[in-house]
Amino acid sequence: MANAPRLAEDLALAQLLADTAGDAIRPFYRAEFGLEDKADASPVTAADRAAEGSIRQILQRERPSDGILGEEYGAERSGASRCWVIDPIDGTSSFIVGRPIFGTLIALLIDGFPVLGIVDQPILRERWTGAMGEPTRFNGQVARTRRCPSIDQAVLATTSPHAFDAHQGEHFLSLASKVAPRRIIYGGDCYNYALLASGHVDIVCEANLHLHDFAALVPIVEGAGGLMCDWAGEPLHAASGVDGSGGHAIALGDPARLEEVLEGLACTHS
Amino acid sequence: MANAPRLAEDLALAQLLADTAGDAIRPFYRAEFGLEDKADASPVTAADRAAEGSIRQILQRERPSDGILGEEYGAERSGASRCWVIDPIDGTSSFIVGRPIFGTLIALLIDGFPVLGIVDQPILRERWTGAMGEPTRFNGQVARTRRCPSIDQAVLATTSPHAFDAHQGEHFLSLASKVAPRRIIYGGDCYNYALLASGHVDIVCEANLHLHDFAALVPIVEGAGGLMCDWAGEPLHAASGVDGSGGHAIALGDPARLEEVLEGLACTHS
Repeated sequence: MANAPRLAEDLALAQLLADTAGDAIRPFYRAEFGLEDKADASPVTAADRAAEGSIRQILQRERPSDGILGEEYGAERSGASRCWVIDPIDGTSSFIVGRPIFGTLIALLIDGFPVLGIVDQPILRERWTGAMGEPTRFNGQVARTRRCPSIDQAVLATTSPHAFDAHQGEHFLSLASKVAPRRIIYGGDCYNYALLASGHVDIVCEANLHLHDFAALVPIVEGAGGLMCDWAGEPLHAASGVDGSGGHAIALGDPARLEEVLEGLACTHS
Repeated sequence: MANAPRLAEDLALAQLLADTAGDAIRPFYRAEFGLEDKADASPVTAADRAAEGSIRQILQRERPSDGILGEEYGAERSGASRCWVIDPIDGTSSFIVGRPIFGTLIALLIDGFPVLGIVDQPILRERWTGAMGEPTRFNGQVARTRRCPSIDQAVLATTSPHAFDAHQGEHFLSLASKVAPRRIIYGGDCYNYALLASGHVDIVCEANLHLHDFAALVPIVEGAGGLMCDWAGEPLHAASGVDGSGGHAIALGDPARLEEVLEGLACTHS
């Protein structure tokens, strides 16, 4: 594959971006969080901006013709076929309460499809990397999803019931009813997908994600043997976000459970 | 206070119990979790039992006349006025997915009231300690809750919507409607109360807790300047658990918000 050497260079650059973001974020973790502060002066916003700013500075220098789409500072060169998609802090609600289960998300998209992704947890110094054609790695070691023999044995994770509208919530609860109640896990954002890639979670199901929320997760989940798709079983790509047609994401550790999960969501086309 | 020297000795013992529990738990964290395993052979059950077993062994030797109530191995000397209450792993759902936001809970009750508590997170090596008449400490440093000027600025945490029955869920959602949606945090179990004691969370609201789920939290929250009570504003004690009259717990970082929270829950007696 002609792209492979280039992708290895891109992954090395992405590691540097994650290092930089971590350095920017750590000083704000569990910092005094004045409730009276204006939203744009909060530590999470300051950390978000510091991290994305430092990532953009490196990208401008190292990849001047690539596009950039970031949660904080928007889009640059949006017509470029290569585009870096950045969410400096995914899981701001965990960040603001001082739980170390948020992450910095860095993705590279080529022609709209995610080919490289990083989830970095800067407090625990945990990092998942994925790149097309390469195995997913957790802190350098190959990571694999686990088998899930049937859906009633699965661990199902989602961040918040409030992230669904009423209609989506019904679909989610339909899926959740197939799973043992004690195996439905809330909170976690990107960290749930990372734990799925390491074989600790079986299903993640979420709605209304933006491209910057899921782009980095696709190469990580799929490079670990899992599957990511939307609620209709279609691949996720740049047009899948709420910016596009609606970012309803499913991640499966064991792709053999796809039909059961889609049936559980009652979103099959049959 | 005549009890103070004794309570300092009890706290030193409780620290040793938490050390022992952590040593027992760490080998099972993120261990292979065979979905096919019988429930009683899972790593979480093995870790739970190893931790509680080692705690009980020390208590039998050091405090032979005290009562013990543990989640795994039940009650011993239940008539004793001094009773140690143990939950070796609170937050098993976080434990099974490899999130380091579970905790070992150790409490000492005297005549049914919690006078000493520890929340220990053995992976992050974070420990909160509380003892009547002493300030709460986080890894040895004094911890304080924060002021919360009004309920609409609060961060509200609860572990899972599935922990409420339909009726309780309505009360919780009534309270949640007073708070900004992005400040409602799910998952976390005991870790939410510990973060409240350190000034990162303002309100925790849960239902159907057992005594071993909340006993250790009371001295920690109150020693940090917060308040714990049931959904009617009454103090929590040994008879408050689901074993007794129902463990519906509220923790407040800023006690000045109590009336608003009880009104939000629509559980005032007026």
